[in-house]
Amino acid sequence: MSNINVNVKEVLATVSAQQIEALNPAAAEALEKLHKGTGAGADFLGWVNLPEETTEELVADIEATATRLRDMCDYVVAIGIGGSYLGAKAVIEALADSFSALRADDDRRCRVLFAGQNIGEDYLCELQDFLRDKKFGIIVISKSGTTTEPAIAFRLLKEQLETQIGKEEASKRIVAITDAKRGALRQLATEEGYKTFVIADNVGGRFSVLTPVGLLPIAVAGFSIRELLEGARTMQRATVEPTDANPSLLYATTRNALYRAGKKIEILVNYNPKLHFMAEWWKQLYGESEGKDHKGIFPASVDNSTDLHSMGQWIQDGERIIFETVLSVEKPRHEVAIPTDAANLDGLNYLAGKRVDEVNKMAELGTRIAHVDGGVPNIRITIPALEERYLGELIYFFEKGCGISGYILDVNPFNQPGVEDYKRNMFALLEKPGYEEETAKIKSRL
Amino acid sequence: MSNINVNVKEVLATVSAQQIEALNPAAAEALEKLHKGTGAGADFLGWVNLPEETTEELVADIEATATRLRDMCDYVVAIGIGGSYLGAKAVIEALADSFSALRADDDRRCRVLFAGQNIGEDYLCELQDFLRDKKFGIIVISKSGTTTEPAIAFRLLKEQLETQIGKEEASKRIVAITDAKRGALRQLATEEGYKTFVIADNVGGRFSVLTPVGLLPIAVAGFSIRELLEGARTMQRATVEPTDANPSLLYATTRNALYRAGKKIEILVNYNPKLHFMAEWWKQLYGESEGKDHKGIFPASVDNSTDLHSMGQWIQDGERIIFETVLSVEKPRHEVAIPTDAANLDGLNYLAGKRVDEVNKMAELGTRIAHVDGGVPNIRITIPALEERYLGELIYFFEKGCGISGYILDVNPFNQPGVEDYKRNMFALLEKPGYEEETAKIKSRL
Repeated sequence: MSNINVNVKEVLATVSAQQIEALNPAAAEALEKLHKGTGAGADFLGWVNLPEETTEELVADIEATATRLRDMCDYVVAIGIGGSYLGAKAVIEALADSFSALRADDDRRCRVLFAGQNIGEDYLCELQDFLRDKKFGIIVISKSGTTTEPAIAFRLLKEQLETQIGKEEASKRIVAITDAKRGALRQLATEEGYKTFVIADNVGGRFSVLTPVGLLPIAVAGFSIRELLEGARTMQRATVEPTDANPSLLYATTRNALYRAGKKIEILVNYNPKLHFMAEWWKQLYGESEGKDHKGIFPASVDNSTDLHSMGQWIQDGERIIFETVLSVEKPRHEVAIPTDAANLDGLNYLAGKRVDEVNKMAELGTRIAHVDGGVPNIRITIPALEERYLGELIYFFEKGCGISGYILDVNPFNQPGVEDYKRNMFALLEKPGYEEETAKIKSRL
Repeated sequence: MSNINVNVKEVLATVSAQQIEALNPAAAEALEKLHKGTGAGADFLGWVNLPEETTEELVADIEATATRLRDMCDYVVAIGIGGSYLGAKAVIEALADSFSALRADDDRRCRVLFAGQNIGEDYLCELQDFLRDKKFGIIVISKSGTTTEPAIAFRLLKEQLETQIGKEEASKRIVAITDAKRGALRQLATEEGYKTFVIADNVGGRFSVLTPVGLLPIAVAGFSIRELLEGARTMQRATVEPTDANPSLLYATTRNALYRAGKKIEILVNYNPKLHFMAEWWKQLYGESEGKDHKGIFPASVDNSTDLHSMGQWIQDGERIIFETVLSVEKPRHEVAIPTDAANLDGLNYLAGKRVDEVNKMAELGTRIAHVDGGVPNIRITIPALEERYLGELIYFFEKGCGISGYILDVNPFNQPGVEDYKRNMFALLEKPGYEEETAKIKSRL
């Protein structure tokens, strides 16, 4: 039994239970395609059984490598983009102290920084400047080793590290996560003697957080990858059968029913700012899997109650083309009660003694009622707490839901042909060798 | 002449120049309503002439207060939500060093933290824990002093500060930005002798960044509010006439023409991660102003090139109901060139000697061409650099564009009735005195 609850009761004013259940046969078929590898993109189904198939040997190796990096480095820069960035970032932000970045000499300080997820000249310059007097290491994540963003960041930071501590020492502080045999980064790692982990051929970037791609940075940040995987295993077992008790299936059918009823935008809502990057990870997972062939729900997100004072007005009263999926965390990590104030000028004494989270929960409930009343269907996903085990469940829940949902939508959920278009133009504009024809063509258009 | 350029050439495959120009009369009428106060919400037009009307006396007072806070405090917590949070956050993030939070003993360290923008129990607990051994002060921003989120945060942090340094010392380190005469916070400030600034009655939260609400935290973070205001004045003068040379007017007519052509979602795109919170500020400005009466463009945002590896697929190939507004920064602050590598395993030597920003600009251009080819109309807004002066121009440009756009859409751009719905439910659920009837009603529904 999984610990994640999916409640779709509050969508029934828009789509009926029958309309949702009508998608069960398609969902069952989708599930079979995922389990038997008979659907589109079947070469990329390595994530389906990954939690159960991850070996003790691999976990121990990742843990040992993380400990070594933590011992040697005050900061570890994880270089990657897309799925090689968002999964680790999401889990670390969900688990870390909100002010860990500011804690200079504290065990709660997060050692993991990110680079190669953008081409911001200022970002890279300021990162290099910050690292100038720091003990740092690098985890470089790239299947080919030639993806532009991480390749630029790695060239710069590798040179800096070698200048700061020498080539030999640097090679001990660099870990490469890359293809098993081929590619620029594999070759470099072999030549320089870097510790390496493998990116499997059958796991796409956005499904890779439970592979070394996500697990190593998460372990370096000090969190339990064993618990994370244990949670994912729990969810793997809970999402096998084609029934409504399968939470991923229920989520997939419900959101497709809403999409067919004209709801074009899904807003993933949280009431805990630590979940901000979990929503970013989810946006890649669903947007990249479903946004093709001129269809697919547009994934958006808000952090409440912050954004109730921003996007709240639109959600309450704007175009009725949205639905919300609320990610609700039952139990916070800490306890803070609202103090009594003798003067009570702010009128808050009616809350005195209550926990802050009780107010937050009433903001959540009050908002759900207001939005449903306003014509916004509401799916509610509850997780017990922001702990590794439950995050592991949540990750696999969303992955499996995405595979099912994509097949119901009748797209290949495991490719991303549209991502190549900008790259091809960029290479042509930058006159990359081999792009001579495209260069001539694009320059004639400018 | 403003330094911000608006280019709408790349929308013309979707809407014609004639379709855009057809909205000029409505835009001219909107502009007149803004200047003469003859439209809906005319009580909230204080922002229109604010840049020109801001006095030297006020600026000097804010600067002196900021200097005093910087001298007394290592950290200043700005407590506020919605417009009392997003404007300052956006400007500070756009100007600060990307790693300023990590710089423990450095002039580039940003002293400003935020609270009261959420009701996260963990966030508040971890903030209190972090501040336990720090020299800190508070800027509390609330017109009434009773808005739930900031009121809770202020109650907790005020008590903590008074416990740490005594009531008298604390009162010197607390600044209140609130109503001129009425309300809980005004009364408290008078009783405790806090330094105060006024929130004018005629400037709504989302238009308040150029008032003390935004200016004080920005000055505390070490940035020039004079330059910011100077830029806003430049743009105020550039947006008076009802012609296409008025950049705010051109933006407003173009986006309304696109909306009428079925483009339901506007994605604000940046290629510089420092602009992330400028997009969040923009989302409140446009979403809260236009999302009403079951209409209004849905505002979303992406940080590229990061999100080209996330939302890029959807944007390229998903439902054709979107357009993009790209915020392009001409000149980065720093210079980083891509080094040569003898082995060239990563194949990047064709870029050696080029600046990182040149690659970024080609990613931007390549993406624009790919997205326009894919059916995504593209508005391009160019600003010379991330400097106070240009940000001031940008802020006023968007504000004025929002007022014009909202009137073209035929809504009251200056109210937010939908924001009250969740609050009313929340108060009823929390059994706030005075809500007895609503409490009974809502409890009967659960």
